[in-house]
Amino acid sequence: MEIKPFITLVGAGPGDPDLITMKGLNAIKEADVILYDALVNEILLEHAKPNCTKIYVGKRAERLSTSQDYINQLMVDYALTHGHVVRLKGGDPFVFGRGGEEIDFARQYNIPTAAIPGISSSVGLTGLQQIPLTYRGISESFWVITGATSDGHLSEDLRTAVQTNATVVVLMGYAKLAEIVALYQAHGRGDLPIALIQNGSLSNEKIALGHIDTILEAAAERRIGVPAIIVLGEVVAKHQDFNRIKEELARTILS
Amino acid sequence: MEIKPFITLVGAGPGDPDLITMKGLNAIKEADVILYDALVNEILLEHAKPNCTKIYVGKRAERLSTSQDYINQLMVDYALTHGHVVRLKGGDPFVFGRGGEEIDFARQYNIPTAAIPGISSSVGLTGLQQIPLTYRGISESFWVITGATSDGHLSEDLRTAVQTNATVVVLMGYAKLAEIVALYQAHGRGDLPIALIQNGSLSNEKIALGHIDTILEAAAERRIGVPAIIVLGEVVAKHQDFNRIKEELARTILS
Repeated sequence: MEIKPFITLVGAGPGDPDLITMKGLNAIKEADVILYDALVNEILLEHAKPNCTKIYVGKRAERLSTSQDYINQLMVDYALTHGHVVRLKGGDPFVFGRGGEEIDFARQYNIPTAAIPGISSSVGLTGLQQIPLTYRGISESFWVITGATSDGHLSEDLRTAVQTNATVVVLMGYAKLAEIVALYQAHGRGDLPIALIQNGSLSNEKIALGHIDTILEAAAERRIGVPAIIVLGEVVAKHQDFNRIKEELARTILS
Repeated sequence: MEIKPFITLVGAGPGDPDLITMKGLNAIKEADVILYDALVNEILLEHAKPNCTKIYVGKRAERLSTSQDYINQLMVDYALTHGHVVRLKGGDPFVFGRGGEEIDFARQYNIPTAAIPGISSSVGLTGLQQIPLTYRGISESFWVITGATSDGHLSEDLRTAVQTNATVVVLMGYAKLAEIVALYQAHGRGDLPIALIQNGSLSNEKIALGHIDTILEAAAERRIGVPAIIVLGEVVAKHQDFNRIKEELARTILS
């Protein structure tokens, strides 16, 4: 049988396997090979054909074998030898997922590509918590920024974002929370509501709510750790627990 | 049988019915009542129970009966009398969908609520076209801004965005394209790549690609109209047809 190389980037969504799209699930069902990341829920692989080759390519700092160059080459090699490769990625393939680089690499080999979007944690995890990214009269935009820039510093975009009314979502930035808090405080925004969501959409999901000035204590108290997203903006106060937490905090301070 | 009022906001995704999540589809299957918008693909309603009440509440300027207040009240009334209401919305419920206002209204009646995220056209329609919203070394953030502000003017956020390297996606802003082009030109960004995507993810999808300085002609030539999203940023040049279009344009100018 002639091999028809084809590569489909598929977004698996933020964690809960039911948050994949129908179209994404159909691609999994048809795949000859699936290359999947660390943040992908492995339950999704059960939908693959019995003879589908499933390869874990989650990046680990200590393992050279799963560098991006290696993943790119693996993806192309499997497409040429096996046919339809599904590159299954956490969240959405093009939101800090290096999906663009994978597409570029495939095109160098003239392998046809497709992409199926996924629920980005920026939109999905806020949504599940019923924090509206936009709200008439409060926020008319949202800005999604990586906390893990290539040079290791805070993104310049964040230094601009702090001066706007946009709802800001920082992905992969939890290690820089104290630095982000200091930035917002330096701009006189200590009162801004902020949320931290760890393991969003999964059974072990945790959330911390507060203001810029109180969030470090709240994070310590709730023992928030990675992976977690950071949501900054007045819309966070729309979370159903926000006022209760605020009142509890006020009582603690007064007592 | 006792009625248990419950309201679930569900994002239907950008148009292609296969771009709904599994979780969203399951909510449709369980709904006693579905209130759905103009941008929702009606094929999705076929998954509802036979006795499910399906009501179109797409907003039309001339019809007072589908104002937001009316939709809010309808949603609550049906929950109290019928049980589980699914509020099915185009894209994601909280991305310019007034989902936050609907949740607030439901809470006034102490009706429990849930939300199931959807593929926002900002992420999904760019993804399907394989335009990466972020790309290492090119863009480390993306900013989604409404073109339809409450006061009818361009969003102040857009005036800030034009000065950043963020990928910018403008939703519901096609009528303001000329104004947006002028804003970018005034900031010396006539060379910035830009894409317009109309009816994204559907069989009648159309795309126009160009630079700020050429996009109005490209839009006219491709007969782009509403509904269309606007994508601004260097990442647009990653679209597979971008270089071909650029060369064609260069030939036209030289000839």
